[in-house]
Amino acid sequence: MSSLLPSEKAFVPFVSVANMMRLVHHIGIETLLSELTDVIEADFRRWESFDKTPRVASHSGEGVIELMPTSDGEIYSFKYVNGHPKNMAHGLQTVTAFGLLAEVSTGYPVLLTEMTLLTALRTAATSAMAARHLAPKGTRTMAMIGNGAQAEFQALAMKAAVGIDHIRLYDIDPQATAKTVRNLSGMGLTVTACTSSQSAIEGAGIITTCTADKSYATILTDNMVAAGVHINAIGGDCPGKTELHRDILLRADTFVEYPPQTRIEGEIQQMDADYPVTELWQVITGHVTGRRDANQITLFDSVGFAVEDFSALRYVRRKLGGTGFYQDLDIIADPDEPRDLFGMLLRAEQA
Amino acid sequence: MSSLLPSEKAFVPFVSVANMMRLVHHIGIETLLSELTDVIEADFRRWESFDKTPRVASHSGEGVIELMPTSDGEIYSFKYVNGHPKNMAHGLQTVTAFGLLAEVSTGYPVLLTEMTLLTALRTAATSAMAARHLAPKGTRTMAMIGNGAQAEFQALAMKAAVGIDHIRLYDIDPQATAKTVRNLSGMGLTVTACTSSQSAIEGAGIITTCTADKSYATILTDNMVAAGVHINAIGGDCPGKTELHRDILLRADTFVEYPPQTRIEGEIQQMDADYPVTELWQVITGHVTGRRDANQITLFDSVGFAVEDFSALRYVRRKLGGTGFYQDLDIIADPDEPRDLFGMLLRAEQA
Repeated sequence: MSSLLPSEKAFVPFVSVANMMRLVHHIGIETLLSELTDVIEADFRRWESFDKTPRVASHSGEGVIELMPTSDGEIYSFKYVNGHPKNMAHGLQTVTAFGLLAEVSTGYPVLLTEMTLLTALRTAATSAMAARHLAPKGTRTMAMIGNGAQAEFQALAMKAAVGIDHIRLYDIDPQATAKTVRNLSGMGLTVTACTSSQSAIEGAGIITTCTADKSYATILTDNMVAAGVHINAIGGDCPGKTELHRDILLRADTFVEYPPQTRIEGEIQQMDADYPVTELWQVITGHVTGRRDANQITLFDSVGFAVEDFSALRYVRRKLGGTGFYQDLDIIADPDEPRDLFGMLLRAEQA
Repeated sequence: MSSLLPSEKAFVPFVSVANMMRLVHHIGIETLLSELTDVIEADFRRWESFDKTPRVASHSGEGVIELMPTSDGEIYSFKYVNGHPKNMAHGLQTVTAFGLLAEVSTGYPVLLTEMTLLTALRTAATSAMAARHLAPKGTRTMAMIGNGAQAEFQALAMKAAVGIDHIRLYDIDPQATAKTVRNLSGMGLTVTACTSSQSAIEGAGIITTCTADKSYATILTDNMVAAGVHINAIGGDCPGKTELHRDILLRADTFVEYPPQTRIEGEIQQMDADYPVTELWQVITGHVTGRRDANQITLFDSVGFAVEDFSALRYVRRKLGGTGFYQDLDIIADPDEPRDLFGMLLRAEQA
């Protein structure tokens, strides 16, 4: 009764960055990306069972801080994530994140984890899931424009889940490309460093754009994009930030996660409010055809949605069992008698 | 470079429940409640500088999970909080919470802390702040209807910040009252256990209601409430949950934190959408008169707002310096080169 030691219910398993890295290597990066792609796809198949809301954003001159909650009625999840493009110049991450799972029935948290790494993994897995349904069949080459923190995760997810074996890289900063070439060596991929976007997209069935400047940019123009490609537009993702020229969007069929959020943050913020989009989950369930023919340009206007984090958090929780790659955090006040919160405080002084 | 040890930026100070209890006793409960009342009042004075939004709620049959963000443009805060009235029957807390402060300029978290205890403290401090401006001058007696987890915190905050020295307790469960009497003994208060609400409110200048059942309840009826009292309505706070008969609201002048949230969750959800309310911050800044005369019934329809958590989190951060009552949490992935997140992961395997 008078102990300072909290009861078992008071503990929440916490996965630090170091433990997340241990877990990733324990599973294997490609195995993890492949399994995560399947887990996210399974949750997209039951899309209608999720409580969905556009993320809650707090914008400032330097960036944005967002909360991304969702629930399937049994488990609740949310992620805290920031996006600060100017951070990189100060040696900080553009995107950092952490997240939580809780039981809907009690409201008690059951997992707290770093999500900077996990967000990179789930973003790549989501791209791979979309490409599996939208990219031209049999394509083995992907262009990767923007070689920042997300690049290698995208390359390995497309390898593990889609069968890509050739990556063509371009970044306005050759050092970013060199870093990506170095990190991907020995991974079973042919990696080609290119000196322009135009050159990078040669022969690519998938074009992934992943740049981070917070301003209207045009990474791809219309005349660069050939018939039949799949564009995986990852970067941008905040009001005022796009990567594609609007003429591309007028030629492409556009697929999105959750339209109310994508219309605010995605490439389609350039378009009229009635610009037609297809919800990706409807392609995955077979309600709507994704790729109809070999000349169609498909565009996944990806901004990241809470359901993907929910899937990733549950995957981590499931994989964590028996590994010891977590610590117990005393974050929930749990007096022996629930109404006696003050008594617990008093007894702590006496202890 | 190849170390698993994260850099200093990667660490976020974390205050566990045990450390929060140490901090509270280090400062002293009444000193803390008094200082916190002043800190919250200072932030209410600059109400217009906060980015405000109704909390983001996820409702279920058993309760609610809420995220409560705000920002003053320099510091961002949010709280995760649940409300599950049925938890008590299973030996769990009705309300548990944790919260975070982050720098707006970088999005990096700077404090993570338990907030079950801190919410109890800030709720009591907010009540005391409202009573300081609205209660009849010189009143020294408070009735406390509902003697659950919040009761002692309310009593001590009203003592420390308003000068209350007599508490009259009533709860439908006599064991809850007995617990509160026991915990408040030796605290410099006259404490009277009463056998009805009617008896508890005799001679009280402040009536605090703090019950938790999730259904329309009537803790106070109109004929019980005498002219001149201040009602501090703490309980309820979700759609479908109220404590006061609507006739009381028709006689009272009602003061609220943030009208868009209170109209959904507060006592005033019973009233028409145009039922007049006064924002408390306008009383505190002197823009509007709070208590006009000795016969007026004032009602603080308290639901709890994010700015109060912001104040409490900043207070804890300020008081934490030099105490050692925290641990450093490795929650932010922070590679030496910000674009080289994947390289950090690779090097962890080699290490």
